[in-house]
Amino acid sequence: MAAVTIWNEYRHEREDDEVAAVYPDGIHTTLADALADEHTVRTATLEEPDHGLSDDVLESTDVLVWWGHEAHDEVDDEVVDRVQERVLAGMGLIALHSSHYAKIFKRLMGTSCSLQYREDGGTERLWVVDPGHRIADGLGESIDLPRSEMYGEPFDVPEPDRLVFVSWFEGGEVFRSGCCYRRGSGRIFYFRPGHETYPIYENEEIRRVLRNAVAWASPTDGSPRTFGQRE
Amino acid sequence: MAAVTIWNEYRHEREDDEVAAVYPDGIHTTLADALADEHTVRTATLEEPDHGLSDDVLESTDVLVWWGHEAHDEVDDEVVDRVQERVLAGMGLIALHSSHYAKIFKRLMGTSCSLQYREDGGTERLWVVDPGHRIADGLGESIDLPRSEMYGEPFDVPEPDRLVFVSWFEGGEVFRSGCCYRRGSGRIFYFRPGHETYPIYENEEIRRVLRNAVAWASPTDGSPRTFGQRE
Amino acid sequence: MAAVTIWNEYRHEREDDEVAAVYPDGIHTTLADALADEHTVRTATLEEPDHGLSDDVLESTDVLVWWGHEAHDEVDDEVVDRVQERVLAGMGLIALHSSHYAKIFKRLMGTSCSLQYREDGGTERLWVVDPGHRIADGLGESIDLPRSEMYGEPFDVPEPDRLVFVSWFEGGEVFRSGCCYRRGSGRIFYFRPGHETYPIYENEEIRRVLRNAVAWASPTDGSPRTFGQRE
Amino acid sequence: MAAVTIWNEYRHEREDDEVAAVYPDGIHTTLADALADEHTVRTATLEEPDHGLSDDVLESTDVLVWWGHEAHDEVDDEVVDRVQERVLAGMGLIALHSSHYAKIFKRLMGTSCSLQYREDGGTERLWVVDPGHRIADGLGESIDLPRSEMYGEPFDVPEPDRLVFVSWFEGGEVFRSGCCYRRGSGRIFYFRPGHETYPIYENEEIRRVLRNAVAWASPTDGSPRTFGQRE
Repeated sequence: MAAVTIWNEYRHEREDDEVAAVYPDGIHTTLADALADEHTVRTATLEEPDHGLSDDVLESTDVLVWWGHEAHDEVDDEVVDRVQERVLAGMGLIALHSSHYAKIFKRLMGTSCSLQYREDGGTERLWVVDPGHRIADGLGESIDLPRSEMYGEPFDVPEPDRLVFVSWFEGGEVFRSGCCYRRGSGRIFYFRPGHETYPIYENEEIRRVLRNAVAWASPTDGSPRTFGQRE
Repeated sequence: MAAVTIWNEYRHEREDDEVAAVYPDGIHTTLADALADEHTVRTATLEEPDHGLSDDVLESTDVLVWWGHEAHDEVDDEVVDRVQERVLAGMGLIALHSSHYAKIFKRLMGTSCSLQYREDGGTERLWVVDPGHRIADGLGESIDLPRSEMYGEPFDVPEPDRLVFVSWFEGGEVFRSGCCYRRGSGRIFYFRPGHETYPIYENEEIRRVLRNAVAWASPTDGSPRTFGQRE
Repeated sequence: MAAVTIWNEYRHEREDDEVAAVYPDGIHTTLADALADEHTVRTATLEEPDHGLSDDVLESTDVLVWWGHEAHDEVDDEVVDRVQERVLAGMGLIALHSSHYAKIFKRLMGTSCSLQYREDGGTERLWVVDPGHRIADGLGESIDLPRSEMYGEPFDVPEPDRLVFVSWFEGGEVFRSGCCYRRGSGRIFYFRPGHETYPIYENEEIRRVLRNAVAWASPTDGSPRTFGQRE
Repeated sequence: MAAVTIWNEYRHEREDDEVAAVYPDGIHTTLADALADEHTVRTATLEEPDHGLSDDVLESTDVLVWWGHEAHDEVDDEVVDRVQERVLAGMGLIALHSSHYAKIFKRLMGTSCSLQYREDGGTERLWVVDPGHRIADGLGESIDLPRSEMYGEPFDVPEPDRLVFVSWFEGGEVFRSGCCYRRGSGRIFYFRPGHETYPIYENEEIRRVLRNAVAWASPTDGSPRTFGQRE
């Protein structure tokens, strides 16, 4: 059981009726619901002071889950500095879907994190390429999402330490959809699925991945782990 | 320009009319033709003494290209020892298609190298996921093969040092089709495409990949490289 | 708490008085003692039928700890096959000191695993280069061993997934002393310290590393993990 | 032969007599001299407009060599953006010694890049841990530097793709002194040795490493390589 903070930009859900219909209480609320059985969950959003990510919040967070899309630039650089420092000290980070362009993710990767995409609502199938990985626990050989937004290669990230999922798209593309990294003492997982108008986070298998990813990324999974202390 | 030895089991082509129709002089001859513009090429086959891989041959080989399929078990362990030793000393190795189960490839990987497959003749599209890699030189964003045998994940190999291609298959699968490794001082490239009855090695883009892969794997590419000397 | 099997060649201790003085009941007994507080431990030795590593034993082992030195060649290839298969299915493996040349370790690495050494009894200092790693839990910045055998680079292994320790030797050498790998679904840790006549495994910090390494390598650490199923 | 630009902060050499005595024309001039036999070399310094790194300069640079120490913060963020973009597009980067804290290096690594150090003038011995690597070409098993500044672990960088050198220090420390990375299409090499008052860059073996590193990092080494084009 990890102490999770879910961060959501929380913008589309309040501005766009179509999004509000899928995620009436915000994507963060749906994500919280997906994790609550196995973890302790709080949420934080862009509009809050410090975007809800004060020192106190970060210091009591094992894993930070990040959703951003249209307002990446509005995230304050000082908050990004603080989150980066905390990840390097051991906090886990799960970056979801369009968060490939979140400042904190780009900061930790050091690359452009660019990719190709097409909004077409075709089928996506996520293949488990590393079936022994903690994040793939309890899954079958693949996960089918009947309607999804396409993300295609090349995805400009450093070579992942472990690649857990590769997506197949009906339209003919592939994507490295589940990428694990270590930076400093912290574990980072990029997970592609998610969308503001397809109910991806209601899918039971996707929810299982999210719970697993939090368990994997948590510094307190397994047994108490002392954070690496660096100056 | 590298000194290449192409090794072929050379069995189907002499036993099966359908294969003989596609590769009348053996797959090795077609592969030699694909490489000859940029490299010096010799061939060797299973039936020759030492399978054509004597010490003399190996010592004058920069890159060994390997094709095996139905007779992996007939390859002598002493020859495998010798090839492994030479790779660790700096010789490049390109393992093609069904050579994922070749003794030498399994030996160097340390894993089962198992995968899923289906002989269906559907379309394969190879996506370049690492466009700056030497092996992707001169390619577009993907290569289309209209008829191909399907190989699917999970592919039980160590995490590649660099992943250059991921295949999309019409039937719904994905595969890590171009995987780079370093073992000792030698470079190893696994390349999935190829088949005994589809003329994959006649495809101009595939031939370009083969030439690039040899250049990348060669210890003499770029500038003279001294082999690491180990006891 | 993991189910550990400690394998020892158990040869020096019965043939050499000097070794017997340090490890009167065999190195396996001292290792068992080091692990028993946190894990369930059994032992197995070379002379037993199947070297003590029957299918039943392996199937109920989470982590196998391996010590071999002068009798690597006497380990039966069928047992090596079985252990390899089990590691790929998820069992952890800890290879200690001179086990860099154990058949099972070389099999899983695919390289010669050669290194330099000098039996001089000088000081070794192990630096923690990855302080956030599970295996470094509870350690300070380094571990000092007043008398040790020197192992020096180059160590011919694949680039480790994570490098946890680098040793400094009084005589002027360095060595990558703690190397983590994943092969198939199994975790592998090579740990350099150990010797048949220096009481390295009585050192409290080294014992802590051993316990941590078992916890890290165990497929059941943290939460139940399903083994990847491969054909 | 690569087109190299050597960037130097060029501050100590003009402010400190002791440094001026060792590098009277600036460290960049000594570095240029080390590279000139095999590469085409230009220099650029902090005080120049755009720090000497205009778009024109960067576009005609294969490999950028970076030396910074006391004025990292004075490097303009826009120049850092431009250099990062160019590295991701394929330009090589060699970061020397105290440049572990250069903005561009931290940007590309995503970590704090912190380390321990002690200014003591003791002996350093760099061990070649990857003797088959291009950067180790023509070297023996180690390089001795009689007087050097100590850098010690932990070094907070991502796990290197290839680790080429590990340093041993007389005072009891170790350091990963030669670290290779790929980010986007560009190759990055961090090389520890160097100092403003010890004449490290006059050492013939160190100069050989510098020339090799440039050849390795250059996108045009070996054969013309097309830069990966990303949007």
